[in-house]
Amino acid sequence: MKIVILGFGAVGQGVARVISMKKDYLRSKYGLKPQIVAVCDHSGAAIKEEGLDEKLLLETKTEKGKISLYPSYGAPGVDSLQVLEDVEYDCLVEVTPTDIDDGEPARSHILKAMEDGKDVVTSNKGPLALSFQELGDCAGKNGVELKFEACVGGAMPIINFAHETLAGCNIESIYGILNGTTNYILSRMANEGSSYEQTLQEAQEMGIAETNPYQDVEGIDAACKIVIMANSILNLPVTLKDVDVEGISRITSESIALAKKEGMLIKLIGEASPDALEVSPRLVRQGSPFAVEGTLNVATLKTDLADDVTVVGKGAGSVETASAILSDIVSIWKIRK
Amino acid sequence: MKIVILGFGAVGQGVARVISMKKDYLRSKYGLKPQIVAVCDHSGAAIKEEGLDEKLLLETKTEKGKISLYPSYGAPGVDSLQVLEDVEYDCLVEVTPTDIDDGEPARSHILKAMEDGKDVVTSNKGPLALSFQELGDCAGKNGVELKFEACVGGAMPIINFAHETLAGCNIESIYGILNGTTNYILSRMANEGSSYEQTLQEAQEMGIAETNPYQDVEGIDAACKIVIMANSILNLPVTLKDVDVEGISRITSESIALAKKEGMLIKLIGEASPDALEVSPRLVRQGSPFAVEGTLNVATLKTDLADDVTVVGKGAGSVETASAILSDIVSIWKIRK
Repeated sequence: MKIVILGFGAVGQGVARVISMKKDYLRSKYGLKPQIVAVCDHSGAAIKEEGLDEKLLLETKTEKGKISLYPSYGAPGVDSLQVLEDVEYDCLVEVTPTDIDDGEPARSHILKAMEDGKDVVTSNKGPLALSFQELGDCAGKNGVELKFEACVGGAMPIINFAHETLAGCNIESIYGILNGTTNYILSRMANEGSSYEQTLQEAQEMGIAETNPYQDVEGIDAACKIVIMANSILNLPVTLKDVDVEGISRITSESIALAKKEGMLIKLIGEASPDALEVSPRLVRQGSPFAVEGTLNVATLKTDLADDVTVVGKGAGSVETASAILSDIVSIWKIRK
Repeated sequence: MKIVILGFGAVGQGVARVISMKKDYLRSKYGLKPQIVAVCDHSGAAIKEEGLDEKLLLETKTEKGKISLYPSYGAPGVDSLQVLEDVEYDCLVEVTPTDIDDGEPARSHILKAMEDGKDVVTSNKGPLALSFQELGDCAGKNGVELKFEACVGGAMPIINFAHETLAGCNIESIYGILNGTTNYILSRMANEGSSYEQTLQEAQEMGIAETNPYQDVEGIDAACKIVIMANSILNLPVTLKDVDVEGISRITSESIALAKKEGMLIKLIGEASPDALEVSPRLVRQGSPFAVEGTLNVATLKTDLADDVTVVGKGAGSVETASAILSDIVSIWKIRK
């Protein structure tokens, strides 16, 4: 399977790393031989029809900062759409940074690949949160797969779980902690009695919160994930603007202490159902599956037969997110082979 | 798909109920038309080539106590092996009561069906805990499917999750709360400071613990599940006698209170890895995915790429367990159609 990777930040590098790590496993277990035939970053591309070397890709990026400096096969200034036009491949891995205003450039990459009859795996929330139905229709029309497990909680594989493992159940609603940064901040506030501002600053110093934490702490990131799950699991044709969003920046240590006295915790919860599409701080009970701490993500599916089923996993991390992309690649391979 | 159900207690009746509930869904989503062509209980059988009526099956059992009194198609005294010999069917649903001494009669039912080239779905832990490898070999030799999601935590679908959803990951170990009765008892002891004996008695009065609670409270039920997961997820050829088992009957309210002071809980934990096969009471941290209360089950898979991934769900319940059986039926259908 010939793969093009667009975007070579933490997730793109994670994908190269896991493909390198799992070559023997994939070949022996599934007969799958993934070949990375092109990689793009802001500097240009590295392109090799017979497959680039994953370790050399990672070395080039780490040591030289630009993928276009890949020995002999670097292509400075060649842009992503050009690569999709010129290179022969089977599957696009779209892992450029998320943009939630217009979803670009990921949206154009994904549409171009699908219109050319290629399967797509992405971790990019932007295009899906803004125009899920358009992308889904395009995939259907062109008979290609569009997979996006990595968009919703890196290593909390809730989407494929809903479609594959719960095949006999109808899923009625989704409820979850969908953002690791806010869960980390709220957990530390609860355990240490510290203020929101102080805890956020410490989380930034530790690299858990970003320098500009707006999308995380104001619930936008969680809202994107709720939109993607609402569309793909509940078949609700909604977009980001349909979500009522409230973040955690106004939560005080006093309100957390008060909740704690009653055996409760405050968590930033996303909910999707035919009646509600919302991200907001809510009380959860100690001892419930939602009482998890740290950067963990958790999502509960309310089903008609199995009652509530919950998945807990790491919400972020380069290799963890890449593992979701790899699972998507494997499931495409199972269909295509 | 023609289905024979052996055993018509809570789980068997749940299967009839979910098939009845989900007929339209299964037909429109998967093109699957399940037909129950025979059902056996201790009294005999009900057999009808064109398919028995699910509601009439449930009515007959509830009102008359014997499935052999099914109108016009009852067959008093006809036993299970005879049914498997005489009836034309595609898939056996084996849901007779679990026996952990010799696994019978389920073991003979399952072997007979597989040797006749039929697929099997079971919720029966006995045969799998005692002779997983033999049954797996028999399935392989006869080219049939043997599925058993319902054996391990009714509505906590960890086995198919491991095989399908985490397709790109290697799973290194399994760790979980695998018995709802003991989790319920330990949760109440922690919340109320009550003694083991008193809490067990109340759980029995509520129907959460059985009259003879030995297999639950002494960890045998959890050990069976650990054996099944070790075989099917970790490929370890172990049986029940390989598990070190310690139950919860010697846990005092004092030790639980002491743990609680340090932000810990005592839970009955099962572990399977290449180095350990064990069920025993252990300390878990408040705020971890293992701090769940009530009758919930939880299992964590330690993976090479996605770190720890956890599934939480109801461990028991007629319809919940039947939902796992239905998911197995659907996945067999996807292979066969």
